[in-house]
Amino acid sequence: MKRNAKVSTAVIRRLPRYYRHLSELQRAGVVRISSSALGKSMGLTASQIRQDLFCFGEFGQQGYGYKVDSLKEEIGEILGIHRGHTVVVLGTGNLGRAIIQNFKFSSNGFQLLAAFDVSPRVVGAQIAGVPVYHADELESFLAGRKVDVGLLTVPIPAAQEMADRLVAAGVRGIWNFTNRELSVQRQDVVVESVHFSDSLLALSYMISQGGEDEPSDIQEGTE
Amino acid sequence: MKRNAKVSTAVIRRLPRYYRHLSELQRAGVVRISSSALGKSMGLTASQIRQDLFCFGEFGQQGYGYKVDSLKEEIGEILGIHRGHTVVVLGTGNLGRAIIQNFKFSSNGFQLLAAFDVSPRVVGAQIAGVPVYHADELESFLAGRKVDVGLLTVPIPAAQEMADRLVAAGVRGIWNFTNRELSVQRQDVVVESVHFSDSLLALSYMISQGGEDEPSDIQEGTE
Repeated sequence: MKRNAKVSTAVIRRLPRYYRHLSELQRAGVVRISSSALGKSMGLTASQIRQDLFCFGEFGQQGYGYKVDSLKEEIGEILGIHRGHTVVVLGTGNLGRAIIQNFKFSSNGFQLLAAFDVSPRVVGAQIAGVPVYHADELESFLAGRKVDVGLLTVPIPAAQEMADRLVAAGVRGIWNFTNRELSVQRQDVVVESVHFSDSLLALSYMISQGGEDEPSDIQEGTE
Repeated sequence: MKRNAKVSTAVIRRLPRYYRHLSELQRAGVVRISSSALGKSMGLTASQIRQDLFCFGEFGQQGYGYKVDSLKEEIGEILGIHRGHTVVVLGTGNLGRAIIQNFKFSSNGFQLLAAFDVSPRVVGAQIAGVPVYHADELESFLAGRKVDVGLLTVPIPAAQEMADRLVAAGVRGIWNFTNRELSVQRQDVVVESVHFSDSLLALSYMISQGGEDEPSDIQEGTE
């Protein structure tokens, strides 16, 4: 598939939304969809959608719309869903536990290998079938395996140290839920942070303005 | 404070990040900061920062930079932090519990009034001092109080129904963690969704590209 060289952050941020919406359409039994109908369900214009998808090559046929399943497959491919990514979770407090138990890693192409904590109450146990090891074992665990991503849900004071250890041990991405900005110098390691407060403050702004803004996704972020 | 009429989604999404960074600078004892230094810490250019803040009127003095505490206050004001917003949580599974116990609502100008669930194991109890009522009591609770936001962490099959009930009972915003798209017809109600999977798939894309992209915030999303 040909791809245009430089894809903007805004487009990258929309790709997962396309994937999510197409998955829902597929589940609803929709076979083909026009760019205007897809746009409507996502709050985008038809021309925006055609532009976005054009970044990644030719999809769909003029006048016939997009085939839902193959467009979803193509976007999944672009997102790296079939690359066998692996992840470990650091921190098994309520949030870590909620994510381990409820988040569908496999639907997003990730295999959850293990969790790490320091509490004797959980070390040695399993959470939803995922083994919990002591944080001291992190390096030896990572040394023997390809682990792409470390998910951080540790307390704030431990966040940067655990991030440093993950990077030193060779992960390529950190999925950061600690609500602390992480400093990672390596250009080849990506930090993706989920800041709940940024989301609530955006909502606070919108309701303070009288709610005239459109419903929005946290991922949206562009114009 | 004068404000330009139309503020783009991208700027709105960046405001909470400004607020967060300025809070960190304040904690670190920084009194004044130049737009270039602030930009550097946030991955933005100085001119981008000046443009963003110009949307909301004049801040700072040419050549003197910004006063950290007053800029933070002004942005907090714009975000509605002093408006006495209130919130209730629907669903006290692991995620709801994690948010109730750990999320600093008050730092974001929100008062958490109550939680609702259907499980006899939690109804009638408190979580971190927050009373948990039966979901059947939602309407009577909301009838007697100004509740601005409902935070949804209920299971997916219950998500739309609970959203409908919140809207009918008069909330102005829904903070949606259910990973389901909600359909809300009212123009004066804002839905803000936190989709973990969109964040992980963006990370998946970036590490699949070899991690050449810059570290990014989930909130970022613009160019």
